[in-house]
Amino acid sequence: MKSYRKELWFQTRSRRELINITGEIESCLKESGIKEGLVLCNAMHITASVFINDDEGGLHEDFEKWLEKLAPEKPYSQYTHNGFEDNADAHLKRTIMGREAVVAVTEGSLDIGPWEQVFYGEFDGKRKKRVLVKIIGE
Amino acid sequence: MKSYRKELWFQTRSRRELINITGEIESCLKESGIKEGLVLCNAMHITASVFINDDEGGLHEDFEKWLEKLAPEKPYSQYTHNGFEDNADAHLKRTIMGREAVVAVTEGSLDIGPWEQVFYGEFDGKRKKRVLVKIIGE
Amino acid sequence: MKSYRKELWFQTRSRRELINITGEIESCLKESGIKEGLVLCNAMHITASVFINDDEGGLHEDFEKWLEKLAPEKPYSQYTHNGFEDNADAHLKRTIMGREAVVAVTEGSLDIGPWEQVFYGEFDGKRKKRVLVKIIGE
Repeated sequence: MKSYRKELWFQTRSRRELINITGEIESCLKESGIKEGLVLCNAMHITASVFINDDEGGLHEDFEKWLEKLAPEKPYSQYTHNGFEDNADAHLKRTIMGREAVVAVTEGSLDIGPWEQVFYGEFDGKRKKRVLVKIIGE
Repeated sequence: MKSYRKELWFQTRSRRELINITGEIESCLKESGIKEGLVLCNAMHITASVFINDDEGGLHEDFEKWLEKLAPEKPYSQYTHNGFEDNADAHLKRTIMGREAVVAVTEGSLDIGPWEQVFYGEFDGKRKKRVLVKIIGE
Repeated sequence: MKSYRKELWFQTRSRRELINITGEIESCLKESGIKEGLVLCNAMHITASVFINDDEGGLHEDFEKWLEKLAPEKPYSQYTHNGFEDNADAHLKRTIMGREAVVAVTEGSLDIGPWEQVFYGEFDGKRKKRVLVKIIGE
């Protein structure tokens, strides 16, 4: 069994942002030389997400509005966690979107559907944060 | 390390439907000959889900009502994604339900609890869509 | 390829409770002797969750309030599933929080971010329930 590990680093300009990282994960996979196995890709921070969905701008606006409805950022005082912080909403938003994606590796490629794209979802940005890419297989 | 791959295809009659696929995944596992490892089972489409829960009709009605409350289908105009499509709600519903399940394989069987059943959750059906079953192990 | 399996058992005093199980999973990992691979950690019950977030009491209060808003326990009669049971809300709460976490193993340790902690989320407790820890790798 082979294994491979890489950290991808991000620093977004705004508090919330969705970044397509499919190409970076494919580059990791090529670098690993693994042909059959599994890729785990997860946020290493608890106010960010790795998830799979469509790379369509309208949908990303819908995600923003929808997450603000389900777990609004403000007023900050509505959350007990916000005594010393202001990011409780980001913990909740990331819970909805999920921490990680597990993707199959087949014949050396990411084995994903035609519209599946992997995203880094940042919900408390403007500082350096990272994603782990771990690949195991042969 | 052995690996196994199969696609399961579905075409539902209605827009939304939950289908128990535990038996099909167990058949894949037998076919693979793998005794110890992991099964990844994921929707290959971004408006569908693979998730684990109870095979109980009342609960499935509750899921339908609950998802319609959290991410209603109509009016279509409430979603920016729906300029050319009408399925933004399906992207959101699948986000709540999750894209994938990872299940342990122990002594050649799916290592699941007594009430755990694996479901394909369709949220934009009436057309052919598929699920990936990838198994790695020995 | 090596594999390892262990069940962790829990019986909470209250209906809902969040328990940090990071230390127990690390103990499993040491016992397994696996240095590179993946840990799957999942609830074996469909009204409980394994998820990763912050070990901060204020945030845990926020989770409780938020989940009660998205999927309230009462009135029991609002859910069809509750003909013979009273735990439909627990099935929905666990859906939001997720069934499982997959964590990388690197150099014999859980490869998690500085604030990432693994939790057992109980939403219908006061009885014995269990979590599966399955580790594969080398």
